[in-house]
Amino acid sequence: MDQPWQDATRTPLARAEALLAELTLEEKLAQLVSIWPGSDVGGEDDAEVAPLQHQINNGQPDLAELLPHGLGQLTRPFGTLPVDPTEKAKLLAEDQRRIVAAGRFGIPALAHEECLTGFTAWQATIFPTPLAWGATFHPELVERAARLIGDSMRSVGIHQGLSPVLDVTRDPRWGRTEETVGEDPYLVATVATAYVRGLESAGIVATLKHFVGYSASQAARNHAPVSLGPRELADVLLPPFEMALREGGARSVMAAYNDVDGVPATADADLLIRLLREDWGFEGTVVSDYFGISFLEVNHGVAGSPGEAAAVALAAGVDVELPAQRCYGPPLAERVRSGEVPEELVDRSVLRVLAQKAELGLLDADYSPEPAALSDGGRVDLDPPAMRAVARQLAEESVVLLANRDGALPLAGAARIAVAGPLADDVAPLLGCYTFPRHVGVSHPELPLGVEVPTLFEALAAELPGGRVTRAATPAEAAGADVCVAVVGDRSGLFGRGTSGEGCDAADLELPDEQGAFLDELLATGVPVVLVSLTGRPYALGRWADRLAGAVQAFFPGEEGAGAVAGVLSGRINPAGRLPVGVPRNAGGQPWSYLAPPLGQAGEASNIDPTPLFPFGHGLGYTTFAWNDAALSAETASTDGEVTVSVTVTNTGERDGTEVVQLYLHDPVARTARPVNRLVGYARVPLAAGASARVGLTFPADLAGYTVAPGRRIVEPGALELRLGASVGDLRHALPLTLTGPERRLGHDRRMRCPVTVEPAPAPAPGR
Amino acid sequence: MDQPWQDATRTPLARAEALLAELTLEEKLAQLVSIWPGSDVGGEDDAEVAPLQHQINNGQPDLAELLPHGLGQLTRPFGTLPVDPTEKAKLLAEDQRRIVAAGRFGIPALAHEECLTGFTAWQATIFPTPLAWGATFHPELVERAARLIGDSMRSVGIHQGLSPVLDVTRDPRWGRTEETVGEDPYLVATVATAYVRGLESAGIVATLKHFVGYSASQAARNHAPVSLGPRELADVLLPPFEMALREGGARSVMAAYNDVDGVPATADADLLIRLLREDWGFEGTVVSDYFGISFLEVNHGVAGSPGEAAAVALAAGVDVELPAQRCYGPPLAERVRSGEVPEELVDRSVLRVLAQKAELGLLDADYSPEPAALSDGGRVDLDPPAMRAVARQLAEESVVLLANRDGALPLAGAARIAVAGPLADDVAPLLGCYTFPRHVGVSHPELPLGVEVPTLFEALAAELPGGRVTRAATPAEAAGADVCVAVVGDRSGLFGRGTSGEGCDAADLELPDEQGAFLDELLATGVPVVLVSLTGRPYALGRWADRLAGAVQAFFPGEEGAGAVAGVLSGRINPAGRLPVGVPRNAGGQPWSYLAPPLGQAGEASNIDPTPLFPFGHGLGYTTFAWNDAALSAETASTDGEVTVSVTVTNTGERDGTEVVQLYLHDPVARTARPVNRLVGYARVPLAAGASARVGLTFPADLAGYTVAPGRRIVEPGALELRLGASVGDLRHALPLTLTGPERRLGHDRRMRCPVTVEPAPAPAPGR
Repeated sequence: MDQPWQDATRTPLARAEALLAELTLEEKLAQLVSIWPGSDVGGEDDAEVAPLQHQINNGQPDLAELLPHGLGQLTRPFGTLPVDPTEKAKLLAEDQRRIVAAGRFGIPALAHEECLTGFTAWQATIFPTPLAWGATFHPELVERAARLIGDSMRSVGIHQGLSPVLDVTRDPRWGRTEETVGEDPYLVATVATAYVRGLESAGIVATLKHFVGYSASQAARNHAPVSLGPRELADVLLPPFEMALREGGARSVMAAYNDVDGVPATADADLLIRLLREDWGFEGTVVSDYFGISFLEVNHGVAGSPGEAAAVALAAGVDVELPAQRCYGPPLAERVRSGEVPEELVDRSVLRVLAQKAELGLLDADYSPEPAALSDGGRVDLDPPAMRAVARQLAEESVVLLANRDGALPLAGAARIAVAGPLADDVAPLLGCYTFPRHVGVSHPELPLGVEVPTLFEALAAELPGGRVTRAATPAEAAGADVCVAVVGDRSGLFGRGTSGEGCDAADLELPDEQGAFLDELLATGVPVVLVSLTGRPYALGRWADRLAGAVQAFFPGEEGAGAVAGVLSGRINPAGRLPVGVPRNAGGQPWSYLAPPLGQAGEASNIDPTPLFPFGHGLGYTTFAWNDAALSAETASTDGEVTVSVTVTNTGERDGTEVVQLYLHDPVARTARPVNRLVGYARVPLAAGASARVGLTFPADLAGYTVAPGRRIVEPGALELRLGASVGDLRHALPLTLTGPERRLGHDRRMRCPVTVEPAPAPAPGR
Repeated sequence: MDQPWQDATRTPLARAEALLAELTLEEKLAQLVSIWPGSDVGGEDDAEVAPLQHQINNGQPDLAELLPHGLGQLTRPFGTLPVDPTEKAKLLAEDQRRIVAAGRFGIPALAHEECLTGFTAWQATIFPTPLAWGATFHPELVERAARLIGDSMRSVGIHQGLSPVLDVTRDPRWGRTEETVGEDPYLVATVATAYVRGLESAGIVATLKHFVGYSASQAARNHAPVSLGPRELADVLLPPFEMALREGGARSVMAAYNDVDGVPATADADLLIRLLREDWGFEGTVVSDYFGISFLEVNHGVAGSPGEAAAVALAAGVDVELPAQRCYGPPLAERVRSGEVPEELVDRSVLRVLAQKAELGLLDADYSPEPAALSDGGRVDLDPPAMRAVARQLAEESVVLLANRDGALPLAGAARIAVAGPLADDVAPLLGCYTFPRHVGVSHPELPLGVEVPTLFEALAAELPGGRVTRAATPAEAAGADVCVAVVGDRSGLFGRGTSGEGCDAADLELPDEQGAFLDELLATGVPVVLVSLTGRPYALGRWADRLAGAVQAFFPGEEGAGAVAGVLSGRINPAGRLPVGVPRNAGGQPWSYLAPPLGQAGEASNIDPTPLFPFGHGLGYTTFAWNDAALSAETASTDGEVTVSVTVTNTGERDGTEVVQLYLHDPVARTARPVNRLVGYARVPLAAGASARVGLTFPADLAGYTVAPGRRIVEPGALELRLGASVGDLRHALPLTLTGPERRLGHDRRMRCPVTVEPAPAPAPGR
């Protein structure tokens, strides 16, 4: 007969409670830790994929040692070492069988993996990086990708994905800028929530990270302290997490490495309990970032030993220690036994872990570790055509045409096209830091990429055949061409091994690796230059802005990225990407965000103009759009009401194309200094040549809310302006709106979205 | 018979109350405003000495218009236009006579001036900039200078000085870095408090500015928003203000331009009332920064009109509108009359203003506007020898010898000394932004400097006569010399008119104006180069660090600065300055502060190493010192106790010299992430060659306190380390200390200082 915790008719919590009651302290604590097989098997450079790993990870217990008590998690079975995924899926199933067999209660481990740009496994589809998702302004497509990613992970026995990143870019010098969706919280929230939906719909536990403040570190140095007050936190950094929990149903949250104003997130009960659980009602698990609990002792100095770090983190609400047991094992057990840490705190976390396992079917009587993909004896295909197709669509929609002078683009008409730049025939600038080849593969140069990744040169030569495209290694070789495609880019990597990625921060926003000097030389030859930036962050382009024939930006667009960029260059694809981060004019003067209030913009008080060369939301295409008949459904709305902004968009060019209608809020007088413009809605509008659509964005007054004091978000009566723009620097219509009625206090149940309608419309009368 | 408010036997407050009772609303409001004669007399470029002045200042009422109701303040009679000080003193007296005669109660105006680097008046002594005060580590000398400055201001009818600046440098890109005392709050607090004491002892109202957060603006752009939490505010930015109020007795505080986390200081009742008045017991006046109340409307968007801005600022605790009436006049009167603003709020501020006037003797029956300096019909001398002597001593003690390779310095032995660099024979790099010549004089190029200011070339040629010193304009000309003194520097100015100063921010810390390229060329010639930096901020010197024969840093050292630097170069002066801010290695990667916790230091989590080339506290000399017998008076102290750190310092060289003993606190485990090292005491120790001194620093446990939650500063039991160092990068002795007893909560009455004793001591036994 089944045990009560195996009874699938009970709620996951009831099953967890039943099981918890049976567990010894050691068995409880085992559920709160993980093991990272393979993380310390190699030498110095092998599989070093986390900071301080080699310092902290020494002497992690191995599987056999832990098994008698059970095991909460398995860390990165696929993303640690290069292993054939079919073989690895079998090994993982074998490990699970051992875990189930060895413990008293047969509880499998929850296996987690990275999936920032797709499943971080060898031979898995490499999607564009999240900054590219932001550039698509197309959450539905991101959701589709995430569903496919989740399906493939689930099919090989993975339960949890350590994605998405909901950090809002605050300083693009940060190496992890590539992992963010962009610099605007509404864009980040909507796109990342779509990712969460997709992943969760596949049965994978999505993990919201990094909670919170990580992207705002001093000078954008990885892990550096964060200076931030409660209002900025509430209005800029927290909303993506709120939306992803409420609408995406994410079941896990990762506590960030950093401190905010001195308090490490991993030690912050106000954040992890009061806000996350009590205010927001979160019931899933809070996991530490890798070694994040040890950081409390080793780096933050808020604990004097592993046991004290465990006590602090557990009390603060961190349920699970990742990636391996160091603090939550014996050191915590000792403190519980001595009475220093109440066992109730352990129970609280174990309950959450077990409830999640129940929910995932891991406690079911008929649980089998055999992954679906192997059930028919077949081999795993982590890069099937359907995934490549979505990766390609995402890449295509993410390419941003920054500038196009005198119709230099598309290149269709050019007879002699020179492709220059050291990275033009390298796959590196296509792949983000959390792709398998850049994350793990760089330590295994002998390993094939695992998936087919054409370089931009290859893709362009295929796109424009007949010998028209040649490779120029030097500026002199490019000089005779009709046009030169100058490819600049990042090489992502971990901890100083690249120019972008985790631990690869920038001192300024100069193009890396002397590529700026190369561009100078190229331009000096007089050849018309189309710049293609394949990067993980925006770089300063002001030095060349007036001399480039054209400029294209793609953020690590993934395995299908080269074809996408080549398609934009050739004209096969009409680009529709929009910048999720501004492209700066100058390399210095960071940080900046378009969300700045008036005194954060250019002005006479400082000689430094921080505003970018290409602003947030900017992107051109090969057709033109007219925006007409902008209107509000009413000139006033109550502070708990809504109003619909409408505009007719017409494709006035000769090609089908996509416009992105952006809605910005301007609040001229508030109780605090507010952004001059902030995004409150957007609509992606595909239109055939000559076609029109009436776009409606229903703006709820709640979206005018902001935080006046810690924990106090209000919407107040008064004058606002709703601004429709093709970018924050290209505002087309400004519509005054007056909110009326009482001031309202907003909570976690406030409306966070601006719903959109796009309907075919007759073309406006000529002459408009 | 005298009126009650003229009765000097009553308290100032009682006199103010008596007078207030007589005043109409218009007369009250007139006491809260100022007029700025001469600020709008010229064209675009004339006397434009404040941001947005030309936008906001239009149509300020003139003196005649205001007189019938009285006048609170007179703005910068001396520091606005170039006027002979004797004539100006007479004109000021005349204005006061008019003001007294025209009002019903004969109340004179309170006249304020700038005095950041001395009295900002034509022909007044130009002292070194505050960053140079910091470099002296010599508060007593700063106090002496401030007393002289105050005396000279008082002698010509000035009552209030808008100094000192207590902002702690958080990002040296900020143009006003030159106005700060440095990057450490203890150094800023002790030095600026000394300045306040000096000024107040002369009867001048010292004005603490900028309250608070101004130096922490985003990317160091002037007026940009400040991201900051309550702990950093309380532990880094507020302590200098606390000490200057408690120990310096400052009678005025200026609300800063900036917002912190969205709330403008000028609108922040929590800051200006709850903290400043209720917690700290401040009873003086709070004045706005120039146009700061208008900023609430025009820039911060927290008010919709001048009247609303007035209402917000008044309610927040801003008593006086500077520099001219715009919001606190008729717009505020209207709101009081309509009942929107309670008249009690006006009365509260007027009382403070009148009490201050009573205190200053301005309400006395025998008040006379005739300034002391003119009483005998004589002329004013604002630059007497006694002031020049102190200016010179301050300059001399502020020069920092950064590096000295192979005894390149002093230059005494060199036969052929080439002086290179475009600023070597320019006075500009000697004078800060708030000196009269750079602040006002730059708009009046025809005007003589007013005081004698030798250039460095002139001073060095005089210092080392006999034709040994020649001017090399080009690197080629310098190539044949025995040594080349390469002078690089800033030209200070306002709002983009210079490379340092208010509104002259830097995008990075490259030497300005291509001076780095000049230095490259110079070094390429092979001539040994001694670099002299005459700047307002530290600049990155890492590129040349290994190739310079020597390096000297002086921060705008004033009218006697060239002689001071020349004296160090020649060897006449044995340098004893210590860096109040680190000199960075690289130009990018800002901001950084040595106060960073472990994760803010260099580490493996980021490829960016932010630590400086020359750290905080660094400075060499022409003698050597041994530090021996470091000891604590006890290994434990209670959390309300103290302990004395002692060390014997011996001048082991052949020249008299001065060592600066620095005491740093290391707190290994705390409740928040704490600085690895922070300065908690220092002692300046002049020692004859061969002499020894026993230096004692009495560390009170209160100085281990820090803020764990808003408003909650504690000192807790546990292990600490007291570290004695010659700089934060050159720690000589580490002494473990354990605090015992209960955790204590600290208030505004906590101990903020580490008292110092320096006593002659026998030389330690040889071989030590």
